[in-house]
Amino acid sequence: MTYPNWLTQRAYVTGNQLALSFDEDNWTFAEINAIALDYAGKLAHFGITEQSRVALLAKSNAEAVFVMYGCLHIGCEMVMLNERLAAAELAYQIKDAGVDQVFVDAKLIEKVSSAKPVSFEQLKQAEPAEFNLMAEWEKDRTISIMYTSGTTGQPKGVRQTAENHFSSAVSSALNLGIAPDDVWLCTVPLFHISGFSILMRSLVYGMGVRLYDKFDASSCAEELCKGHVTHSSMVGVTLDQVLREIEQRELRVSSRFKQILAGGGPVPVSYLQRAEAHGIQVLQTYGMTETSSQTTTLQPADAKTKIGSAGKPLFLYQVKIDGANPGEAGEILIKGPQVTPGYIGRFKERTVQQDGWLATGDIGYLDAEGFLYVVDRRSDMLVSGGENVYPAEIENVLMAHPSVREAGVCAMADSKWGEVPAAFVVLEDPQMLEELADFCRGKLAGYKVPKLFKLVDELPRNASNKLLRRELKKWL
Amino acid sequence: MTYPNWLTQRAYVTGNQLALSFDEDNWTFAEINAIALDYAGKLAHFGITEQSRVALLAKSNAEAVFVMYGCLHIGCEMVMLNERLAAAELAYQIKDAGVDQVFVDAKLIEKVSSAKPVSFEQLKQAEPAEFNLMAEWEKDRTISIMYTSGTTGQPKGVRQTAENHFSSAVSSALNLGIAPDDVWLCTVPLFHISGFSILMRSLVYGMGVRLYDKFDASSCAEELCKGHVTHSSMVGVTLDQVLREIEQRELRVSSRFKQILAGGGPVPVSYLQRAEAHGIQVLQTYGMTETSSQTTTLQPADAKTKIGSAGKPLFLYQVKIDGANPGEAGEILIKGPQVTPGYIGRFKERTVQQDGWLATGDIGYLDAEGFLYVVDRRSDMLVSGGENVYPAEIENVLMAHPSVREAGVCAMADSKWGEVPAAFVVLEDPQMLEELADFCRGKLAGYKVPKLFKLVDELPRNASNKLLRRELKKWL
Repeated sequence: MTYPNWLTQRAYVTGNQLALSFDEDNWTFAEINAIALDYAGKLAHFGITEQSRVALLAKSNAEAVFVMYGCLHIGCEMVMLNERLAAAELAYQIKDAGVDQVFVDAKLIEKVSSAKPVSFEQLKQAEPAEFNLMAEWEKDRTISIMYTSGTTGQPKGVRQTAENHFSSAVSSALNLGIAPDDVWLCTVPLFHISGFSILMRSLVYGMGVRLYDKFDASSCAEELCKGHVTHSSMVGVTLDQVLREIEQRELRVSSRFKQILAGGGPVPVSYLQRAEAHGIQVLQTYGMTETSSQTTTLQPADAKTKIGSAGKPLFLYQVKIDGANPGEAGEILIKGPQVTPGYIGRFKERTVQQDGWLATGDIGYLDAEGFLYVVDRRSDMLVSGGENVYPAEIENVLMAHPSVREAGVCAMADSKWGEVPAAFVVLEDPQMLEELADFCRGKLAGYKVPKLFKLVDELPRNASNKLLRRELKKWL
Repeated sequence: MTYPNWLTQRAYVTGNQLALSFDEDNWTFAEINAIALDYAGKLAHFGITEQSRVALLAKSNAEAVFVMYGCLHIGCEMVMLNERLAAAELAYQIKDAGVDQVFVDAKLIEKVSSAKPVSFEQLKQAEPAEFNLMAEWEKDRTISIMYTSGTTGQPKGVRQTAENHFSSAVSSALNLGIAPDDVWLCTVPLFHISGFSILMRSLVYGMGVRLYDKFDASSCAEELCKGHVTHSSMVGVTLDQVLREIEQRELRVSSRFKQILAGGGPVPVSYLQRAEAHGIQVLQTYGMTETSSQTTTLQPADAKTKIGSAGKPLFLYQVKIDGANPGEAGEILIKGPQVTPGYIGRFKERTVQQDGWLATGDIGYLDAEGFLYVVDRRSDMLVSGGENVYPAEIENVLMAHPSVREAGVCAMADSKWGEVPAAFVVLEDPQMLEELADFCRGKLAGYKVPKLFKLVDELPRNASNKLLRRELKKWL
């Protein structure tokens, strides 16, 4: 089964509608399709075909969208690299993915210089070559690949197929509703599923995207008031910052603005109430890279009685708790067409679905009415300013230091970022404690480097010697 | 690949939303799901399982919906019988489909008495038995079967799968938009795809349906003014009647009412202008039983410049003209997940898709901007008060009369029904002309019995002796 090429189809059926807005520029679907066709030719100039896998390292700007849409026309797979990662982390992903070519925003070229990248500037200047336009997309074709860590601490490249993205977009539409003049404000990174899924929704719905290359509370608050945008995606901390701007500057949110999707864990009820006071609906959502974004959402109407809940599954999805009696906690399992078929690279052979069910590693329960509560995140993951941080990955880096005998990382509350990592270490030489932050830098993205290092005699472990990261939190 | 049972899922995720409204009664999704579970047990009482195929003959009322939704829970296939058909026509379909059981509205029982039907009254009284709830639906599972004629004049049972209905609902949503409080006014028959697709959209969207057991211009006009309904499906003649009611009674259409989907051929521009004057958007649409309703629609913004066009394909669909150069007319071919996988019964082996493309038998062309124009309907089909009428089927019946040597049927304009059939006959005994209407009754539904019989010496035929029905029209 196939889809008609989404970009071609959008240019055909709603060519005059707004597709993208960035800085002062706007593009309709017909215009962005023409640009994407040009970029497809430029990519072909560098030998890219539908058999290729490319890596993209870019700021979330219009140029990045042109390159991505060019890739869609060619039909190659895109590995989305996180611009905040350290050079060593990027090198791992590029190698693991076995990409044919890395395309990089000129500003970021230093980070991947060893991979012999092609800069966006070179790409733009290239003479377009002939290429095969992917007129139809197989449903199981991989569109994007995003790396995510987990229990092992080793990042795994997650495949997201055309059907994954389509199902995610449709399920969201069946939940939120859609209107032909919707415009989604995107201030989250395009290399994350939170941002890339907005582009996918744009193509599936024929919806405009107002794009920013980074989150800025002041501009974001202003956008909500201008009357152009109708939706946005945030996490608790960014929502709070936007609300503060609105409150302090006494801004008036446009009646055209409808909803904010809030991921990254429960949003405090006080934030919801403040948002409501400005006519903003906040839908809390639970999802992950392996489920191409949202799987459950909590309706505003339920938010005050179901505090801390992640809501109910979207229409096409199922959620159950592994082996638990009703109301009991256990591992959260997810089934639906949004679930990844699997990984690439060294984890290619790992099974991700069992009878169609994805084991998330997250712990949760369903209440009597079927509302999901996530009580413990997989691998004690923490969310720092919207970025997922996996303690095991940081511990692995720390353990590589000659003096570190044991390392345990957990979340620490932070007023600006929501959470930041804190490290507890057992050292051969206690004096080395001060070196550890420097040791981590260059090996880990800045947001993963622990903000606190604490020397201890031993780490809390269970009977089978497994590190109890939850216990660490109590030591803070 | 599967869907979660749509009814179960709707009762779970939007259980408190309006599902159905009929006469003075309303049911939420939770309520109608409970009724459907009860009906599933009652159907099981009569031996119905997921292996069964049942035929339903009913008025389009709430009880019919309960039985249909009970069937969805059991997972049996439903053959939708048209209550306006004659006994002989019904007997043909029941036999061809090889159904396990016929369930019939008590008022219609005479029509199918030879098939030993179970009346809805008996069904309602039955003690529910245990049954296997279909918790998940295979995408390629046949949900409904509807008979449609065509060139041969022999009705063929068209299968409509879960994916056909889902894709149709989603494509329509991506075109029209959807909102959580939408309510669709359904005055078209549930046994036709125009009506049944409204029920399917209701389940997929979580949308309310305001159901009438027959079209009545006066009530329909009032519904548009009450502020409860947001959408409706009509054909040109019914739209005209509703507009007349609004105009003559100086009614005021509610601002909550959004759109009318108009099928059954181009709607005169004057109707569109009258609708617009009352704030009603009319979207003309082209589709058929084999495509689970709409395949293309014409946006109101294009209706005045693209007069007579059926618009552009919905997002998931492709339309092309067989073997024609750009702008030239030819057979219309359709591809997409809404296209039936095939027929049942005696036409079971007939191939309906060639490389995924359905040959519609309709003739049309695409203009330079890709707008579809249908210039000639397959088999010279005519549309009488929303019912498709196939000349070949009527000609077959006429030819069975001992005195009829040749028969040709074509469309005749009619102020009430839009079109009605007219018959031209070559007779052994001219005196038999007056008998022919009586001869047809009992063998054909009333709306198929020609309103005019005309005696001629010979019929217009081409070189290979094929009847030229278009020539007949000129004789009227």
